[in-house]
Amino acid sequence: MKLLVVGANGTLGTAVVHEMKDTAEIIQASRKNSPIKVDITSTDSIRSMFEEVGKIDALVCTAGAAHFGAIEELTPELNSIAVNSKLLGQVHLVLLGLPYILDKGSITLTTGILMDDPILKGTSSSMANGGVRAFVKSAAIEFPRGIRINSVSPNMLEESKEKYGSSFEGYEPVPAKRAALAFRKSILGAQTGQSYTVY
Amino acid sequence: MKLLVVGANGTLGTAVVHEMKDTAEIIQASRKNSPIKVDITSTDSIRSMFEEVGKIDALVCTAGAAHFGAIEELTPELNSIAVNSKLLGQVHLVLLGLPYILDKGSITLTTGILMDDPILKGTSSSMANGGVRAFVKSAAIEFPRGIRINSVSPNMLEESKEKYGSSFEGYEPVPAKRAALAFRKSILGAQTGQSYTVY
Repeated sequence: MKLLVVGANGTLGTAVVHEMKDTAEIIQASRKNSPIKVDITSTDSIRSMFEEVGKIDALVCTAGAAHFGAIEELTPELNSIAVNSKLLGQVHLVLLGLPYILDKGSITLTTGILMDDPILKGTSSSMANGGVRAFVKSAAIEFPRGIRINSVSPNMLEESKEKYGSSFEGYEPVPAKRAALAFRKSILGAQTGQSYTVY
Repeated sequence: MKLLVVGANGTLGTAVVHEMKDTAEIIQASRKNSPIKVDITSTDSIRSMFEEVGKIDALVCTAGAAHFGAIEELTPELNSIAVNSKLLGQVHLVLLGLPYILDKGSITLTTGILMDDPILKGTSSSMANGGVRAFVKSAAIEFPRGIRINSVSPNMLEESKEKYGSSFEGYEPVPAKRAALAFRKSILGAQTGQSYTVY
């Protein structure tokens, strides 16, 4: 099976690639430092990627940025980072990528614990996560050709604890390889419309 | 208390105005046909509205559009209707309106049952609803000055059954006045960060 991982270069993407490499032929994409370059905030860039990659069995996205900042300082402009990347970047991968997914293929997107268990300064990211989760739940019921779609919501990753731990006091970090298992379940299982929480 | 209702002219907005009119001095806003005109897809229009209205105790938004269509025909452009209206229209009302909300005031936004219980052709609306719910949950923990924020998720309204009922087979419609009670609870209660479901 052919698996396209968008965000393959990040902590979570790397773990997904590692988890799936014995099962799938993996095509790695990211903004920089991957064989395939893609900027998910640009629909042109997404279109070019799919034209280059062609038909695939599975699409995973672990990419998506958001601005972190206090709600009183969150402007529409700063909020648009999460809208255009974490939310619409992933949604557009689905809308533009659907014709490239083979029959009975799958799509797996990434959300995050903040939508369920918020932290200070995380509102913009929470919003994007919640939008992606609901999009997935709804899209699943009308996907054609037996194609499935799920999302994975990881807790703070153990690998990111040093960098972000002070914002996540009391959260129980999960190793990226545990979160990667949820992607494996989504890709190789039969469920659709699910939000897999790895908390 | 001074209550600004955005979308005052719609089915739900009218019910909220009716529910609250004995308790609050209500300022009605909508795109057309209300004393105050506002287009929530425009940050300039939102800014002008708040400058015109001034300080308020409570803000309610029952406005927000979305494109309904099959996922295979949902383009980024058609999806942007829900993003700019139902999702960002409401989010921007919060971000730009926060300085106008008096101490211990409240904001109440509107989502909808589709995010929990999807229908065909409703993915774009579901996405926006899910984004608003998560935004509210997260924003609530860092709002200043005792200001609260909740969202209300109504089922299909009884008043809309004739128009939309064929898309909602098996759903149990709720009268708009029942949904309006959830707004009353949000405005006059003490809870924050909640998603009140009226299913």
